[in-house]
Amino acid sequence: MLRKYIEQYSGSTLTEEEFALVTASFRPRHLRKKQYFLQEGDVSKNMAFIVKGAMRQYSVDEKGGEHIIFLCTENWWVGDRESFTMLTPSRYNIDAVEDSDILVTTSEAFQGLVDKIPAINNMIRTMDQRNSIANQKRIHSAISLTAEERYFSLLESNPALFQRFPQNMIASYLGISAETLSRIRKKPRTTDH
Amino acid sequence: MLRKYIEQYSGSTLTEEEFALVTASFRPRHLRKKQYFLQEGDVSKNMAFIVKGAMRQYSVDEKGGEHIIFLCTENWWVGDRESFTMLTPSRYNIDAVEDSDILVTTSEAFQGLVDKIPAINNMIRTMDQRNSIANQKRIHSAISLTAEERYFSLLESNPALFQRFPQNMIASYLGISAETLSRIRKKPRTTDH
Repeated sequence: MLRKYIEQYSGSTLTEEEFALVTASFRPRHLRKKQYFLQEGDVSKNMAFIVKGAMRQYSVDEKGGEHIIFLCTENWWVGDRESFTMLTPSRYNIDAVEDSDILVTTSEAFQGLVDKIPAINNMIRTMDQRNSIANQKRIHSAISLTAEERYFSLLESNPALFQRFPQNMIASYLGISAETLSRIRKKPRTTDH
Repeated sequence: MLRKYIEQYSGSTLTEEEFALVTASFRPRHLRKKQYFLQEGDVSKNMAFIVKGAMRQYSVDEKGGEHIIFLCTENWWVGDRESFTMLTPSRYNIDAVEDSDILVTTSEAFQGLVDKIPAINNMIRTMDQRNSIANQKRIHSAISLTAEERYFSLLESNPALFQRFPQNMIASYLGISAETLSRIRKKPRTTDH
């Protein structure tokens, strides 16, 4: 699955030697539901590719409220990029929302792949590009749309999330309260988004 | 200035031949205040490096309201990355908030530099990394902070923006109304952000 992902995102084929290098740089890990991949205050030394499962990245405020910044399923990467790049303690937690199978790599191992395999370099450029476009859209939604518009926009662009994550997590991801989300869902739809 | 930027962001020095290639790939342009660099509906075929000045990227909703997604000054790049990468019509406008001097490159010319000059490739990786971290912070602010907390967080992290852009633009960038911003500024500060 990771090989297919790398080849698709890099637009090139891995040789058997390259694939062996990739395989040697990742180790499989199983996370039970609610198990942590990263805890706030730790340095995010690992990144992981989700083979199966659902995970989330979130902060916890001083009142204990959770703020979900990313919801991730199969074929996504998890890890706090700021902490992973800068080697600073993370302000985020990452845990499994479903039992998950992931492939874990370290900062050093991954940098080794980037240096040795051109396809990995190309994959990162494609990922960064898509990531940057997705983040731009999400920032634009956050500053310009109402809570209701944000809900329908996500339902349209990523309906699968609603099957995998409970309503309270969807609300947090959208930056709205669970009560507001519940009210929006009960209301007949008036606008044509 | 661009050379210094490339060398700083790539961590390497450009040879004179490389610098000549860079120079040949950019053309200087002057924008008067309020002049457009990109208009909604056009494909963003150019990207530009700001040498001097202040610019903004924004959408306009059906009621004529402006939503500012980026405020940019010296040493920043402007251009709608989604449109520039996918060659799709942009939903954004980019214009000059002050008289600005910029260095403009096209998609083809820039790709030529990426292919020929390793330092440019490294520069893009560093830019993407910082961009991704900055966007993650901004999304987190948008979903987890109150309007007042967002205002003080920006004032702390980027005070220079408040010198360069009028209050109504700062409010739009924060996703709050000009009235709310005005109320926050008049209020004695109660929280210790």
